[in-house]
Amino acid sequence: MSLQRLTALRALMASQPTKLAAYIVPTADAHNSEYIAAADARREWISGFTGSAGTAVVTASQALVWTDGRYYTQFEKEADMALWTLMKQSLPDTPSMESWLSTNLSEGDVVGVDPHTMTREEWTPLQTTLTRSKMKLLPVASNLVDAARSQLSDPPPRRPCNQVVALPIKYTGKTAGEKIKELRKKIAEKKTSALVVTALDEVAYILNLRGSDIDYNPVFFAYLVITPASSILFWSSGSLPDTVTEQLKEEGVKIEVKPYSNIVPYLQELAKNEAAGSGRAVWLSNEASEAIHRAASGSDVLNQPLTLISEVSPVALMKLVKKEVELEGFRNCHIRDGIAVVRFLRWLHEQVDDGQAVTEIQAADKLLEFRKEEDDFMGPSFETIAGAGANGAIIHYSPSRTGPQRTIHQQDMFLLDSGGQYKDGTTDITRTRMMNRSPSPEQRDAFTRVLKGQIAVGSALFPLGVKGNVLDSFARKSLWDVGLDYAHGTGHGVGHYLNVHEGPSGISWRPYPHDPGMKPGHILSNEPGFYKVDEYGIRHEDLVEIVAITKESDHPRAKNLVGDYDGRGVLGFSTLTMVPHQRECIDAAMLDDLELSYINNYHKRVLSTLGPKLKERGLVQDLEWLERECQPIVRG
Amino acid sequence: MSLQRLTALRALMASQPTKLAAYIVPTADAHNSEYIAAADARREWISGFTGSAGTAVVTASQALVWTDGRYYTQFEKEADMALWTLMKQSLPDTPSMESWLSTNLSEGDVVGVDPHTMTREEWTPLQTTLTRSKMKLLPVASNLVDAARSQLSDPPPRRPCNQVVALPIKYTGKTAGEKIKELRKKIAEKKTSALVVTALDEVAYILNLRGSDIDYNPVFFAYLVITPASSILFWSSGSLPDTVTEQLKEEGVKIEVKPYSNIVPYLQELAKNEAAGSGRAVWLSNEASEAIHRAASGSDVLNQPLTLISEVSPVALMKLVKKEVELEGFRNCHIRDGIAVVRFLRWLHEQVDDGQAVTEIQAADKLLEFRKEEDDFMGPSFETIAGAGANGAIIHYSPSRTGPQRTIHQQDMFLLDSGGQYKDGTTDITRTRMMNRSPSPEQRDAFTRVLKGQIAVGSALFPLGVKGNVLDSFARKSLWDVGLDYAHGTGHGVGHYLNVHEGPSGISWRPYPHDPGMKPGHILSNEPGFYKVDEYGIRHEDLVEIVAITKESDHPRAKNLVGDYDGRGVLGFSTLTMVPHQRECIDAAMLDDLELSYINNYHKRVLSTLGPKLKERGLVQDLEWLERECQPIVRG
Repeated sequence: MSLQRLTALRALMASQPTKLAAYIVPTADAHNSEYIAAADARREWISGFTGSAGTAVVTASQALVWTDGRYYTQFEKEADMALWTLMKQSLPDTPSMESWLSTNLSEGDVVGVDPHTMTREEWTPLQTTLTRSKMKLLPVASNLVDAARSQLSDPPPRRPCNQVVALPIKYTGKTAGEKIKELRKKIAEKKTSALVVTALDEVAYILNLRGSDIDYNPVFFAYLVITPASSILFWSSGSLPDTVTEQLKEEGVKIEVKPYSNIVPYLQELAKNEAAGSGRAVWLSNEASEAIHRAASGSDVLNQPLTLISEVSPVALMKLVKKEVELEGFRNCHIRDGIAVVRFLRWLHEQVDDGQAVTEIQAADKLLEFRKEEDDFMGPSFETIAGAGANGAIIHYSPSRTGPQRTIHQQDMFLLDSGGQYKDGTTDITRTRMMNRSPSPEQRDAFTRVLKGQIAVGSALFPLGVKGNVLDSFARKSLWDVGLDYAHGTGHGVGHYLNVHEGPSGISWRPYPHDPGMKPGHILSNEPGFYKVDEYGIRHEDLVEIVAITKESDHPRAKNLVGDYDGRGVLGFSTLTMVPHQRECIDAAMLDDLELSYINNYHKRVLSTLGPKLKERGLVQDLEWLERECQPIVRG
Repeated sequence: MSLQRLTALRALMASQPTKLAAYIVPTADAHNSEYIAAADARREWISGFTGSAGTAVVTASQALVWTDGRYYTQFEKEADMALWTLMKQSLPDTPSMESWLSTNLSEGDVVGVDPHTMTREEWTPLQTTLTRSKMKLLPVASNLVDAARSQLSDPPPRRPCNQVVALPIKYTGKTAGEKIKELRKKIAEKKTSALVVTALDEVAYILNLRGSDIDYNPVFFAYLVITPASSILFWSSGSLPDTVTEQLKEEGVKIEVKPYSNIVPYLQELAKNEAAGSGRAVWLSNEASEAIHRAASGSDVLNQPLTLISEVSPVALMKLVKKEVELEGFRNCHIRDGIAVVRFLRWLHEQVDDGQAVTEIQAADKLLEFRKEEDDFMGPSFETIAGAGANGAIIHYSPSRTGPQRTIHQQDMFLLDSGGQYKDGTTDITRTRMMNRSPSPEQRDAFTRVLKGQIAVGSALFPLGVKGNVLDSFARKSLWDVGLDYAHGTGHGVGHYLNVHEGPSGISWRPYPHDPGMKPGHILSNEPGFYKVDEYGIRHEDLVEIVAITKESDHPRAKNLVGDYDGRGVLGFSTLTMVPHQRECIDAAMLDDLELSYINNYHKRVLSTLGPKLKERGLVQDLEWLERECQPIVRG
């Protein structure tokens, strides 16, 4: 089947007005979404490979996919290895796609790509490399994979255009009108003609609307253009529901709705008008697609394209600092989410202790049931990672509903990474359980080192404004000291009832170039891990809120403060997540005094927060279980 | 005087073929040197401000200097504040130079700058900002400050062209021929016509030559162009000394010498030839000046300028990994340097104990005397920072020979940051001494926290290939925990008998974008500090060598290793610097077991390394002093 698809694509490449020597199929949709809709799963269709990251390149004789270490095994299972070559990105000897193209093609060759599926940040260096090798990068406006699908009578599924709903002010804390007013102030300062908002979560955030066009992300396909005088939503179809228009009106926004596909001609028109008039630049995100950048500069319709202001999105920066209402929602939904997870963990231990065969999928399903009992729960915030034994060591593992099912055994370490979307916030939690409560010394050592890393970050004090990456090594130190590490970042931003992964900040050894620096009201995950391939995985993930710390704060280091970093201000974290860590897996002898009191205080807080709610709801057995799990840990 | 100078410059700006609304005077010379020669001190001449960093902007009615927090006080002392405006870079409300120009000038205005004094990395964003505001950035090839100087009969001093000497293979470990051969291999791989080497230390490194055109940096003014078939040195005058030509010949290099000022026309000619022929790109460092970039692309002589390969210099990357001979030299010169510093510290304590009035300058001079007694000593590696009491809190303080002299008192903390150039290596060490050996509890606490930071870095294990910035927070943690910090990076690279500050790596909260990742054979400084303004400063600075660590290594964490980061390899540091820390200032109760044994083992090693040498040289009193200083520290 893959051969037929490749053949169709190659025929299209050969028959283009300018013949294409190579065609690139990235994973991204037109909005640079992390999760994509089926309509945009083009790389998956052409290659068979379903992983969340990877870029396919097809030439007349070759077909390759560049992807990273998480997906090597999966790729070899899913792709037809007689047709496809796996390019292992993480190996030092693997050439980058840029360098492969520039050495494997010939001078004068043309490389095509749908400019909607590549950001300008990706486009420009690729173009530079190819130009240097006397090749050309050509934007091909209509997608050749979509065309191939249609030719083979397997047309791409319709782009979803599900219902859009208004999120009331009691959840958002700031009207759409206020948000747009703030942005218009910046538009005036920048002397720009328009702000083009391309990221789906940013459109949803500004307008206080939510959708369901993409699994797990409560967003809808749209662009939003804000000018000094108008707000135009490029939306898939027709007019907005009355309830939505009503709320927008109440929040002081008059919105014009145009068809989704009109964004490019609209921007080209705008560019022409500006070129003929005051010549102001359009302002957009550096993560907007090359297609949007071209349209906004008028590069296909003007001899002298306009300059652009292409930088980190002001909406991303606004959204990053949560309003007090949003923070209160985060705190509240984490209590409800904690109850669901605690109930699930008790249930799971009972089942496994009783010898019931619970599969990973059944566990994920049961967890969802518990979450559904909580107020304002809207669905999972991502596909649950429920990995027993060796599956726990696969960092981006999700159990499959088809094929052989993995049962969770007594002797398994079980890694559970899951989250919920609630109207008042988003959760993302990982806990690791040794089902028989008897970890090996090695497992206990690793579990404790990962916990020490989490505590090192959770208890850190640091100056206001430093970037998240300065904290990454704290999470790794205890592992690094003995030659261990984990192959993922330590923390990501989290949206408020929006995407569970949200930029532009994070905690990683890789700097986040657009991180504006940490401030109170940011939400981050704190999730070190350790993975022993073919045996088990350990990850402890909390969400934390950045808070200002003074000598009077409720923070383990507050009373020792003798300065405030010369006036810059002291920041620390407050943990939102409310689920205990497994006491039997913690080696108290490896914890120093601060660490020991940190974990005991945390468990005390979990119990005193969730306990009364469990009692109120008559969940006596869950309460008893939680009380046992939250007992103080003592050094032997 | 400053008004006369400004008036002359403004007249020149007005009489340019294109009238300049503003003229920018950066600090840099044409090689982006950190330290500059008097001939290049243009910003100093026009503004009066002598600090090592800062950019002047002159318009018809205004004159401004942007500089950072180290220099605010100095600026106000040195510049005529009736004429000059200080733009405090570190304040969040201070507009950047780019933004000031684009808001204070008018559409159509032209901003001039000597393109030799600005790197392309600085030029491009400035040009973008100005273009966006419909202004123009104009390269003015002949420097207007130099012209103003000549008009006022105060012409710039002659560019130095001191003797160039050959550094024998026993110090360098790699012939110039081998270095050029390696570079030619890369030139071939890149399919480029030439590599243009613009940084002075890179020219000296490749050719195994040293000079003295710039204080403290053993370099000489030159450019080096390496083509597949030739090596051309653009040097200030005439032919090289016979001894130099002789060594180059022995090392397999035939060098062509052209006048220094011919570099631009040469590159333009090369560009023209390439444009007419095979059209290959020229390869240069992104830190090469805008002038060199323009010449190499032929942008002033071709309608279609050539593309350039402008990236981190391959010479910088080669130089970063020291050869075993260079490492051995580093280790050896640190022993000799340690002897000099130990002798000095003993002498200073004796003087101050005896009630002798030793000034900061006299201390620096005495230290130099001790260093001069050591083999292969060539001079200081930078201007000695000898700060007593409050002067120690001024991070870039150097005592002045003119004006009132500061005596070092019994009750002073004394911060001494100094280094030496030796034929076999370069040193850079800071030690902090409480002269009366009775620090206050606060000083002892801070001294110990800074030491804990240094030990945290010095004892860290980390994966091969991670960038230096991941270690920065380790150095700060003990200070951050109580709300303290220091306003400088933690570590810089060090050249081998070359510049004491060497890129492209370092340890800082700011990522070094071109850091290729840590590898064995890199040299870094490890220098946390703490500064209490108006009272005292503390800094502990060692140079360290990056070494590969296995279970068998002599490293405090080696025996606990259970992994090697999944095959990536384990790195750690070996300390080169050989001078004890002051025991009376260390609060042993604040050290954990590893820290305590680390510092005691270090002192043991210092004594066992320097002791026999002191004995051999009959320096009995110095030995006795060192023995006392290196006694084990015990917890009370």
